[in-house]
Amino acid sequence: MFNVVLLGAGRIGAIHGRNIANHPALYLKYVVDPIGDAATRLANTLGAEVASTDQVFADPAIDAVVVASSTDTHLDHCLSAAKAGKAVWCEKPLDLDLDRLNEKLPELQPVADRLLLGFQRRFDPNFRALHNRLNAGEIGEIETMHIISHDPAPPPVSYIAVSGGLFKDMTIHDFDMARWMLGEKISQVYATASNLVDPAIGQAGDVDMAKIILKTESGKMCVISNTRRSGYGYDQRVELYGQGGRLAVGNMVETTVESWTEKGAAADSFENFFLTRYASAYEAEADHFANILAGQDKPLVGISDGVAALELAVAAAQSATTGNVVQL
Amino acid sequence: MFNVVLLGAGRIGAIHGRNIANHPALYLKYVVDPIGDAATRLANTLGAEVASTDQVFADPAIDAVVVASSTDTHLDHCLSAAKAGKAVWCEKPLDLDLDRLNEKLPELQPVADRLLLGFQRRFDPNFRALHNRLNAGEIGEIETMHIISHDPAPPPVSYIAVSGGLFKDMTIHDFDMARWMLGEKISQVYATASNLVDPAIGQAGDVDMAKIILKTESGKMCVISNTRRSGYGYDQRVELYGQGGRLAVGNMVETTVESWTEKGAAADSFENFFLTRYASAYEAEADHFANILAGQDKPLVGISDGVAALELAVAAAQSATTGNVVQL
Amino acid sequence: MFNVVLLGAGRIGAIHGRNIANHPALYLKYVVDPIGDAATRLANTLGAEVASTDQVFADPAIDAVVVASSTDTHLDHCLSAAKAGKAVWCEKPLDLDLDRLNEKLPELQPVADRLLLGFQRRFDPNFRALHNRLNAGEIGEIETMHIISHDPAPPPVSYIAVSGGLFKDMTIHDFDMARWMLGEKISQVYATASNLVDPAIGQAGDVDMAKIILKTESGKMCVISNTRRSGYGYDQRVELYGQGGRLAVGNMVETTVESWTEKGAAADSFENFFLTRYASAYEAEADHFANILAGQDKPLVGISDGVAALELAVAAAQSATTGNVVQL
Amino acid sequence: MFNVVLLGAGRIGAIHGRNIANHPALYLKYVVDPIGDAATRLANTLGAEVASTDQVFADPAIDAVVVASSTDTHLDHCLSAAKAGKAVWCEKPLDLDLDRLNEKLPELQPVADRLLLGFQRRFDPNFRALHNRLNAGEIGEIETMHIISHDPAPPPVSYIAVSGGLFKDMTIHDFDMARWMLGEKISQVYATASNLVDPAIGQAGDVDMAKIILKTESGKMCVISNTRRSGYGYDQRVELYGQGGRLAVGNMVETTVESWTEKGAAADSFENFFLTRYASAYEAEADHFANILAGQDKPLVGISDGVAALELAVAAAQSATTGNVVQL
Repeated sequence: MFNVVLLGAGRIGAIHGRNIANHPALYLKYVVDPIGDAATRLANTLGAEVASTDQVFADPAIDAVVVASSTDTHLDHCLSAAKAGKAVWCEKPLDLDLDRLNEKLPELQPVADRLLLGFQRRFDPNFRALHNRLNAGEIGEIETMHIISHDPAPPPVSYIAVSGGLFKDMTIHDFDMARWMLGEKISQVYATASNLVDPAIGQAGDVDMAKIILKTESGKMCVISNTRRSGYGYDQRVELYGQGGRLAVGNMVETTVESWTEKGAAADSFENFFLTRYASAYEAEADHFANILAGQDKPLVGISDGVAALELAVAAAQSATTGNVVQL
Repeated sequence: MFNVVLLGAGRIGAIHGRNIANHPALYLKYVVDPIGDAATRLANTLGAEVASTDQVFADPAIDAVVVASSTDTHLDHCLSAAKAGKAVWCEKPLDLDLDRLNEKLPELQPVADRLLLGFQRRFDPNFRALHNRLNAGEIGEIETMHIISHDPAPPPVSYIAVSGGLFKDMTIHDFDMARWMLGEKISQVYATASNLVDPAIGQAGDVDMAKIILKTESGKMCVISNTRRSGYGYDQRVELYGQGGRLAVGNMVETTVESWTEKGAAADSFENFFLTRYASAYEAEADHFANILAGQDKPLVGISDGVAALELAVAAAQSATTGNVVQL
Repeated sequence: MFNVVLLGAGRIGAIHGRNIANHPALYLKYVVDPIGDAATRLANTLGAEVASTDQVFADPAIDAVVVASSTDTHLDHCLSAAKAGKAVWCEKPLDLDLDRLNEKLPELQPVADRLLLGFQRRFDPNFRALHNRLNAGEIGEIETMHIISHDPAPPPVSYIAVSGGLFKDMTIHDFDMARWMLGEKISQVYATASNLVDPAIGQAGDVDMAKIILKTESGKMCVISNTRRSGYGYDQRVELYGQGGRLAVGNMVETTVESWTEKGAAADSFENFFLTRYASAYEAEADHFANILAGQDKPLVGISDGVAALELAVAAAQSATTGNVVQL
Repeated sequence: MFNVVLLGAGRIGAIHGRNIANHPALYLKYVVDPIGDAATRLANTLGAEVASTDQVFADPAIDAVVVASSTDTHLDHCLSAAKAGKAVWCEKPLDLDLDRLNEKLPELQPVADRLLLGFQRRFDPNFRALHNRLNAGEIGEIETMHIISHDPAPPPVSYIAVSGGLFKDMTIHDFDMARWMLGEKISQVYATASNLVDPAIGQAGDVDMAKIILKTESGKMCVISNTRRSGYGYDQRVELYGQGGRLAVGNMVETTVESWTEKGAAADSFENFFLTRYASAYEAEADHFANILAGQDKPLVGISDGVAALELAVAAAQSATTGNVVQL
């Protein structure tokens, strides 16, 4: 059993906390949150104790920390963990500031083999099967791909204001997906964006819809489509195109019930909440983290992936602002 | 070019008439209908002439007749054609009276190789592909099958009163489908039926919903589901089950447009009219009839199929009335 | 927390054991199994202790027993529980012998409000949504229904020999489904069956494929299709037909990955194992059992449902043997 | 009846010729083709006569010409028709040279109300239903859209060499689709392309895959995906996104047959030939042309649409070459 600390008792922290508490090889010892009440409530539910940040990094009995706190604290917690020699499972992004991140990279190196970055889509059974079947050669080499990543409804404008903007907050998952599937350095980014969902998002300095084209040196291309509001649920599709055809992951529905009426056949609603949509991915991620702690696995997604995805986000934001293609 | 006469200028006559008129090897010479106006209107549209029944059977220039007149005239027209040595394409059923039909069979024999019976589903590209793939061994030998044959809405009660009843009027198509797919003598019939759609149908002495189980001597089974009113369109599915899996034909939709809303994905309406649903089957049937006339083909469905389907309909009606299984 | 005993450490016992152990309101105290090793292994995994049957029924600290032992012990365990005043969650069937079951019914009465019968399909979110939407009037009153219940592959012949036969072992789930959806007494049963999958099943005195038609007094009809071997996975579909259309539950697939090649679009494999297919149903069932223990719920499916389903199974077996319809 | 001339007896000419010959209001009088044999064969099949270009433009009995000849002759034939006062149905594109086309526009003006441009997708029942439902407000105002337009396999390199390049030859249909659906001026084009299908296409100076983003002044965006070789058939999808959800047109399959095996559910092959895929669109187009001749309709797609689509193709080619966004 490895002793784990949860930093952050919010929505995603609660998910990770429960998966850790239920995992046979992990023991959730502490929950830490600046809002003491939140920490106490979650710790009680999960059979853990409340502690302070200083306490947990100083405690030699602690093997690992899960960073599920607010974005601006991610990098500091990772650095503390690296210093204290503790493994880290950090929610994305490592940081919103690419320069700062690059500057601190050497300090993260000690924990590079034990830092898992929370791009949970890589652990979703559907995307994982897609990746496996691509790599098994089912459609030959990938040539182009499409990522549709549409949220059901926008977050509060207050969140958007501190989110780092659409590309760093939302598209960053898609950049990681593109990198994972393409398996090749992306050398060129073009992005164009609009503010069509809510004028308040524009007033907060952000966009709410974007279309992006990535290109690799060998000419492979990836289109990404983003919107903060789909109007029909959580739309998370990936389509891969190769010489031998197409492999794709579709959306999940709430049940398999289908109705037939004069209007035709109608399926049930799409899943419309990411915590439900990715429930099994979060479980698989906890399991992978346990294997890393046991020395049986290297992180499937780690520091260099976080840096690369952030670089693409910065490039996309620049392209959308200037109207020019950005070479990497 | 073969000279063809159309007997019957109603709905189905109009379809066959147009397909004959457009066929490069067929020439529609005459249209015959007791309602002179109907005959004249259709003949004018199709570039044909109006004639009487006597006239056309006596005309040595006529190669073939298409019997699309009212059901009670089918057998007489077929007998006249057999006597006059003309090929026949007869709408189902040959007759509603099994005893009378059996009695007249010897007189039909002369035209047996040139009498095409209008079970149009055998010419539908979907059912034809299903039959081909079954016979190519794709799922091994067929073991059981399901036929769902639901009409969008009931015909007028006046029609039902002269239709011969649900089993002879509607299920007869499904009996032919079962025989075609099973490829083996059906030895046992159980049917049970209800009058749930419209009490007036019950008052006319008929039922409007039925479930039927057929069984062959080797133990293969077929379930048929019928209703006069589906509430969602024309439902014409066939599912075949064998050792290696399942092969099935689904329903057709009006367009491929699909909407995604908060309620989920919705397809377009199902086809809800048999003339549209089977448009290409009727064309293929005309083509097959031309090949029969040219001596290049034997009828894919003929007199013996008509007799066998009627026998099953009689057995089903008896089973539904007595509550007992009927052995054949 | 309610103290629960698990009787039976086999495949289904392991599932229920884990769901009980993970449930916040249930405490798994003992595991009982005639094969001591099996009991020990499962108890160790779940943090429970091993005990004997006598011990657990005598222990006043025990609130409830879960009967997941071999079929021939179900009724005795239920009777012991009734006598000892403990709630029961019993896997189907209560017993294979209808006469014996009827005779013992009075002795079960004391626990009638706290005996949950394990027809897990009633707890599957898909079938539950189907039932809810039917009862919300979405297609009007139900008129007919189809149940397709095809297993991927037959169990060992040794199991079949003690299973009670296809109708009591497999169709019994479908009889319960029909009763649940039709909401009306079934008054008539017709069944016909074949032995087409494996001659050894026939030699063991059983059939391996069946088609069944149920009918209610008001004329509603239900078709059930069963096979011990589908050749394509676990096929568990239910289709409801009413005046306003059709509501249906389809099959589950392993992932949402779809391939497009020259041969067309292909989905991923169907779920082919009932423990995976019904994983969330088993969880929901454990939760419902906790609510029964807390006095917050009556069993959604209990003794009378078990008796009624067994009556239908007996009638179906009789019909298949005699070839006659059986009136209830 | 209007007298019509067919210029061009190739593949598409044969389709239009047959639809004209079968149309009750059109009479196919002449077929013209530089390859005399081709003209003769087609004319014989359709019951028409062979003539020369000069002859038909001089013949006052001719009401209309259908331009289905090689691309380099389109504009000249249109100009001759305009001069001779004859209606024109011209296959796309009007011309490959935008400057030349702009220069000649005044000479085409006389026939502007009777020149139908052959963007046949506008007549496809699926795309037409999509357009109608969008304009009926089903998803509110359109915000973004995706066009997937993938050919099954590339044409001969000899054709590619004279095709005008991917954007003018293939994407031009998609530009017209985007304009039709967006209903708003496109002000910005970004395109990037690769040569991944066949090096010989690259050697011929063309690309074989492209991803394009169009943007309107109000910020609406359209992504287009093109490839000369899909590996799975003819992929022609359009997805519209608005405030209220998504409306999309999917692909067509050869039949509705579906197989279920251990590998899962598999549909039949996709349509893989544009003449089959758009058969009903070509019929509807002929019908629309008859209505134009009868003065009952203005062309649904005409000269200005041809110019606008060509402008977008020129801009896309320029963007793909320079790597810069092109403003219009």
